[in-house]
Amino acid sequence: MILIKTSRDTLLKPLQMVTGIVERRHTLPILSNVLIQQDNEKISFLATDLEVQIETATQNKITIEQTFSITVSAKKFQDILRALSSDIEIILAIQENRLQVRSGKSSFNLQTLPGDGFPKISDETRPEAAITLQQKDLKNLLHHVSFAIAQQDIRYYLNGLLLLIENNDLKGVATDGHRLAYYIINLEESRTKKEVILPRKAVLELGKQLNDNDEPVIIEIFQNKIRFSFSNITLISKVIDGKFPDYNRVIPTQNTKQFDLDRLIFLQALQRVSILSNLNEKFRGMRLIVSDSTLCIICKNNEQEEAREEIEIQYDNEMIDISFNITYLLDLLNNISAETIRCHFGDASSSVLITIPNNENFKYIVMPMRI
Amino acid sequence: MILIKTSRDTLLKPLQMVTGIVERRHTLPILSNVLIQQDNEKISFLATDLEVQIETATQNKITIEQTFSITVSAKKFQDILRALSSDIEIILAIQENRLQVRSGKSSFNLQTLPGDGFPKISDETRPEAAITLQQKDLKNLLHHVSFAIAQQDIRYYLNGLLLLIENNDLKGVATDGHRLAYYIINLEESRTKKEVILPRKAVLELGKQLNDNDEPVIIEIFQNKIRFSFSNITLISKVIDGKFPDYNRVIPTQNTKQFDLDRLIFLQALQRVSILSNLNEKFRGMRLIVSDSTLCIICKNNEQEEAREEIEIQYDNEMIDISFNITYLLDLLNNISAETIRCHFGDASSSVLITIPNNENFKYIVMPMRI
Repeated sequence: MILIKTSRDTLLKPLQMVTGIVERRHTLPILSNVLIQQDNEKISFLATDLEVQIETATQNKITIEQTFSITVSAKKFQDILRALSSDIEIILAIQENRLQVRSGKSSFNLQTLPGDGFPKISDETRPEAAITLQQKDLKNLLHHVSFAIAQQDIRYYLNGLLLLIENNDLKGVATDGHRLAYYIINLEESRTKKEVILPRKAVLELGKQLNDNDEPVIIEIFQNKIRFSFSNITLISKVIDGKFPDYNRVIPTQNTKQFDLDRLIFLQALQRVSILSNLNEKFRGMRLIVSDSTLCIICKNNEQEEAREEIEIQYDNEMIDISFNITYLLDLLNNISAETIRCHFGDASSSVLITIPNNENFKYIVMPMRI
Repeated sequence: MILIKTSRDTLLKPLQMVTGIVERRHTLPILSNVLIQQDNEKISFLATDLEVQIETATQNKITIEQTFSITVSAKKFQDILRALSSDIEIILAIQENRLQVRSGKSSFNLQTLPGDGFPKISDETRPEAAITLQQKDLKNLLHHVSFAIAQQDIRYYLNGLLLLIENNDLKGVATDGHRLAYYIINLEESRTKKEVILPRKAVLELGKQLNDNDEPVIIEIFQNKIRFSFSNITLISKVIDGKFPDYNRVIPTQNTKQFDLDRLIFLQALQRVSILSNLNEKFRGMRLIVSDSTLCIICKNNEQEEAREEIEIQYDNEMIDISFNITYLLDLLNNISAETIRCHFGDASSSVLITIPNNENFKYIVMPMRI
């Protein structure tokens, strides 16, 4: 029984958009499948890991010969489509509960599970809050803070990104308790306050799928989930139930000793000294000594090896001697694209604030460490 | 105490040639180091893992300010040189038994161990046999057989490549007991018979270092080691002490049913059907059915999924129905570059012989498997 005849890319492109979140190994075998069903004159593709769910559909109308709703291994179906020629027509057919993929002289029979058993995250009827913004703005926000999200922290609320709607602003905040990244977008109109913690996996997936253009993305917040609708995609994610730390208390306001650094020069110097840090330890210490016109960076390891770099800066304030986990600075410099960064220091025991000159949207805070 | 002043690439290029064989973790800490010493007006670099040893030297004469022989972490020294600018002069100095690397405003102090404690594989005085051939010929030989070398087989003599000098020929043979690759080079003059088994690691390293040109490589065989001298490099390897299986008994001579295949078309068809093989098993079976003008390839997995491909061939002999481990065919097709291959079949229980039309040098034999 033939379901559809179409070109390879008509199926492959939407399929590839949803397969990124499919887990290879899962206790529920059906979750390694993708739900494929007829949706009017299109075919929709849906994948989920019970926490995040993505749905999209073929772009153009297709002649669908038969209504259907099946699930099939996402990885195998994608591997097969990728390996077939894009020039030859693809035929999908159902035969004894198996999906048959035919193209030229190739044919594949895949195990299926019925579509009605697929654990979709249900769509709520009414969101508690909704905003619309440009895709590039949200992409920018995620890009500037997502690297600071904690990884598998027992403080589960740190394993996500705080999205906060407040007055005219949408704020994004991420922290692992030692460093914090903050980004703010101005909205067109004022809103009631609403906050959610978006899990790490949804943040990374959104970051990949959003376009860098001014097309809209609609964000709708529900009781315990959130929906992003953009381009042809709907991404629904559960949110983390917990209280995010108060980021306002963390952002220093008295850091008056400041200087600018060329991001690439600073990054390359840090990469060089990091060769002689303790590579296998979680906290790789690095010492910064700032005095008249010179930033000196020193890294030592347990074998008493030492690396030292000097960078000329414009600075004529008190001397600073402070140590950091080098990873926290490398993370920042690797993930932003600004040409110049501005460092704002307090005393040797207080956090450093890093900003981007002429960009009020972004703030990054790193706590010092004792070496 | 300054040792030398030179450009980065003068040091980095020879260093990179020897570091490929350095093991990250070894019970002897000095083996993660590279031996650097002054050698007349050049600097030589030597690395070893006690089985394979590579030595090379800087290309041009350098003004060496001080004789020296030290060992230093290969990885750290290489990472530092790579991270430094290629435009700025590098200064190497010794300070309290530490190697100091300076360049512009960067400086690094590295732990050293004295050069005289480094476990070099000694150079014998007289080889038992010696031949000279073109680098591209040896590279070709290694390339055509090295993929068939066994991996961590308890039959330790299979974990290497047989190099056999016999009459006017240099032969290379590798097998894991289920498939065998064979390549022959004609030498200019006849030689006494001599054979060695070259360990896997030395084979792979040689394959990388040899150039694809007609410059000479000298092979010298000693009691229990072998030396390759080419370009600016000397590679010495211990040889595997054991008796290699008799490859002559394995090469079929009665396989009269034959047909040609386009390598890329066959490779792509195999890659597609392999999507539905049992990916996690060591032996991934695949069935070939050859009948009038058609090669049919069928792959099934434990979930009863099935992939099927057909390729048109010129064949009018008896039908063949035979099964193979698909990996053995993928290995071959991925590692040779010939446009066409020729398959020679016997009956369903005998090995298949694969050759390259108009190339008498190469033979590949695969045993069938029962599915």
